[in-house]
Amino acid sequence: MAIAEVTVIPIGTATTSLSAYVADMQRVLASQQGISYQLTSMSTIIEGPLEEVWKAISALHDAPFMSGAQRVSTSVKIDDRRDKAASSEQKLQSVRSKLQ
Amino acid sequence: MAIAEVTVIPIGTATTSLSAYVADMQRVLASQQGISYQLTSMSTIIEGPLEEVWKAISALHDAPFMSGAQRVSTSVKIDDRRDKAASSEQKLQSVRSKLQ
Amino acid sequence: MAIAEVTVIPIGTATTSLSAYVADMQRVLASQQGISYQLTSMSTIIEGPLEEVWKAISALHDAPFMSGAQRVSTSVKIDDRRDKAASSEQKLQSVRSKLQ
Amino acid sequence: MAIAEVTVIPIGTATTSLSAYVADMQRVLASQQGISYQLTSMSTIIEGPLEEVWKAISALHDAPFMSGAQRVSTSVKIDDRRDKAASSEQKLQSVRSKLQ
Repeated sequence: MAIAEVTVIPIGTATTSLSAYVADMQRVLASQQGISYQLTSMSTIIEGPLEEVWKAISALHDAPFMSGAQRVSTSVKIDDRRDKAASSEQKLQSVRSKLQ
Repeated sequence: MAIAEVTVIPIGTATTSLSAYVADMQRVLASQQGISYQLTSMSTIIEGPLEEVWKAISALHDAPFMSGAQRVSTSVKIDDRRDKAASSEQKLQSVRSKLQ
Repeated sequence: MAIAEVTVIPIGTATTSLSAYVADMQRVLASQQGISYQLTSMSTIIEGPLEEVWKAISALHDAPFMSGAQRVSTSVKIDDRRDKAASSEQKLQSVRSKLQ
Repeated sequence: MAIAEVTVIPIGTATTSLSAYVADMQRVLASQQGISYQLTSMSTIIEGPLEEVWKAISALHDAPFMSGAQRVSTSVKIDDRRDKAASSEQKLQSVRSKLQ
């Protein structure tokens, strides 16, 4: 299981609002198999087997082109831990337990 | 108002667990003025006036050194919109309204 | 043609030096087909058809695990322009011409 | 001494070309004290004392607004090593020596 944080920015969109593109990307994610995902105000967090996460990232990157963009800047950060299972919920719980 | 997404990784920590460092960073954030923040499983989202956000990012970057780290890799993404107010909540609401 | 910037950080290494891991990653890149690449002091820049670039990024991400790492944080930024060809050299030349 | 990699993307520009903005940013960097910098095809690498690097990053982030942008997405990665001096050139040399 890997966790990824993805931000996809269409360039040259003429307007500063990107929410229509972000909405299109959420629709693309909804059709991806084997992952869970969550939208934050800065990116989308994707969780699942590494192979499925890569597929979802690639689909997200392609989405704005489908919506008319001609240039896209995609940023990805992947946290891949193989010594133990580490879901988003477990990572957050681990920090919370240390804050108490 | 700007919104930033920050991930701070101490390098050479000997163990793969970073939650103690993340907990220390949350304590540092709690002492910062003028910002709100939220921990996700991949980063910390900070929101406030740009000047205060930069101060908080700088403090976050320094935190692992206080906790004993000798090398730190910090990643930051800032979304700064000056044509209209854009809080985290407004950004999410804008996407949600387009998904309906 | 897409251009990517990739940084791969093994987490929980015994020392703060990562150059042995970076050297292993360069060897992995040397075996990838269809791309060109360049090491900077902060990342590796990869250039080629998007499909080949994704494969190279995936191989880079896997490399530290082959070298013994148990957890890896990989950061990627992709610039994908489809309205005109845009190589690394063309991008730099375009900026240089505007600086004169 | 810290090393940073910075990418600044103006959002909502009329065209997909960003080279004029990048040229303006290089002019802003030329006026910053105490740092050295290098433009790659994907970002600008800045090197110097941490305090000066933060100032340069902040100036880079502000630059597109001076050039007319209304929204900017800035990505930063900082490598800060305090157990030994680590310049860009030393980092590259360390990898090269391991590749031989």
